[in-house]
Amino acid sequence: MKRWPKEVQIKEVGPRDGLQNEKNRVPTLDKIAWINMLSDSGVREIEFSSFVHPKWVPQLADAHEVGQKLKRNPNVRYSALVPNKKGLELALEAGIDGASVFMSASETHNRKNINKSIDDTYPVLREVIEGARKEGKHVTGYVSTVFDCPYEGSVSTDDVIRVCDQLMEFGVDDLSLGDTIGTAVPSQVEQLLEQVLQRYPKDRIIMHYHDTRGMAIANIMASMEYGITRFDSSIGGLGGCPYAPGAAGNVATNDILYLLHGMGIKTGIDEKKVQEAAFYIQNKLGKSLPSKSLAYEAAQQ
Amino acid sequence: MKRWPKEVQIKEVGPRDGLQNEKNRVPTLDKIAWINMLSDSGVREIEFSSFVHPKWVPQLADAHEVGQKLKRNPNVRYSALVPNKKGLELALEAGIDGASVFMSASETHNRKNINKSIDDTYPVLREVIEGARKEGKHVTGYVSTVFDCPYEGSVSTDDVIRVCDQLMEFGVDDLSLGDTIGTAVPSQVEQLLEQVLQRYPKDRIIMHYHDTRGMAIANIMASMEYGITRFDSSIGGLGGCPYAPGAAGNVATNDILYLLHGMGIKTGIDEKKVQEAAFYIQNKLGKSLPSKSLAYEAAQQ
Repeated sequence: MKRWPKEVQIKEVGPRDGLQNEKNRVPTLDKIAWINMLSDSGVREIEFSSFVHPKWVPQLADAHEVGQKLKRNPNVRYSALVPNKKGLELALEAGIDGASVFMSASETHNRKNINKSIDDTYPVLREVIEGARKEGKHVTGYVSTVFDCPYEGSVSTDDVIRVCDQLMEFGVDDLSLGDTIGTAVPSQVEQLLEQVLQRYPKDRIIMHYHDTRGMAIANIMASMEYGITRFDSSIGGLGGCPYAPGAAGNVATNDILYLLHGMGIKTGIDEKKVQEAAFYIQNKLGKSLPSKSLAYEAAQQ
Repeated sequence: MKRWPKEVQIKEVGPRDGLQNEKNRVPTLDKIAWINMLSDSGVREIEFSSFVHPKWVPQLADAHEVGQKLKRNPNVRYSALVPNKKGLELALEAGIDGASVFMSASETHNRKNINKSIDDTYPVLREVIEGARKEGKHVTGYVSTVFDCPYEGSVSTDDVIRVCDQLMEFGVDDLSLGDTIGTAVPSQVEQLLEQVLQRYPKDRIIMHYHDTRGMAIANIMASMEYGITRFDSSIGGLGGCPYAPGAAGNVATNDILYLLHGMGIKTGIDEKKVQEAAFYIQNKLGKSLPSKSLAYEAAQQ
């Protein structure tokens, strides 16, 4: 039988990647109360918001206030998405512990997402990465569409690695590789990691799966076989797919915890507290979240 | 990188295991039209109904009529669940190609399910197995709760093997091992298959997963690593969990096909036709089915 990792690190991205895809606005105080619940679950990193311009993501327009008012747990790293220098200033004021920059491995997706070519995006990210590091902040580089792009189809691993190399050179602490549209199957994960792990140490790679077609848990298993022990997830599977409204988004924290704890892999996270936080935001949004293990728990109650 | 099987065989159990957990009755003619759509998808086996007494499963009270009126595709094996001798007579009259018998590996689950102890169930199953084989029919033995029981908790592999041995001795062609309540994680699959495959050849073992907590696709991957190439699934994830109404049931045929075809593994099944059949039954039942890949397709339309 196989040897699985003893411990896995989860980064909770529900308040950012989850919420940014939810239409119904969550009031700022509710959001803070909810992030405080997450802070108390044992998770070690929470991406609590995004400092992109509010016109792009109105749901997260209160990033600054959230950052300033949330109750800090000293065991949690509070990070946020930071698009540019202006965003970094606001984020630092709001008290971030970590900044995440983002870039797509696909030229067309990057242009549609941030109105710039990949090459024109580099200097902007470099400024953020260097600025954040100067302030002693942790920096994560998100690379999106590492398998498939909604516009270009299949994305070559060479394109992924080119972006990774550049972000590493700028000084990111780690890379989060995203299956942004949730198309990947485990054989694609194997192909990517086979090449990526020849260049970077395992502990600097985070895998970021979307469960749009129900493949995320299998992809996480495939990643763990390659020694990956860091994953992003969203509580309850909160969020969705901008390319198919109604479809599922980020893999659910609840489902990952069910998997890992069931396999005897430690996360330090209290499943019950994560469930409570998932029910809380589910009620605020007035809709059921896509996590099947959460739906099971809800049906039991 | 790993070697995955070239080909996998799917048995469609939606019309039986799926429908039996759906409250809204589907009219017989609609059911037949739907099974005919499935027959045309390229799938090689369909469990079209159950010959248990209608008072237990009113949804499938029309098993006899369905069996007689469905349009036969010579490439499809039409099988049905058969609980006892009386059921077998009806099933043979209805023109089954295969009979499935069922037994639980857990004493309490077996008693709750069929009002008999495991030992008292053997002679009943033996009669069905021998009777069906005498008529030249294929016989599958379902063993349920092979990982966990809703009443007893963890089920030992020894208990599973005891039931398997007995059914094999009675002459079943193959065994379908069921994660009836959808609790298993891949490490449990590895533990079970490690022992099971020391006793029986791989091609006589079918894995039957429920996706109640979203683990089914990962469990299928774990099974394929052990060389298993036969799986039961239900179109769209139709069906539910009798122990948690509202939770998901059988793994969705659509999700398995997305996985397998994405990995270049052949099934002979036309995904588009399966989607159409899933949308058809979804409309008849007036509810969305749990498959995420189906929900994605629906959102795209």
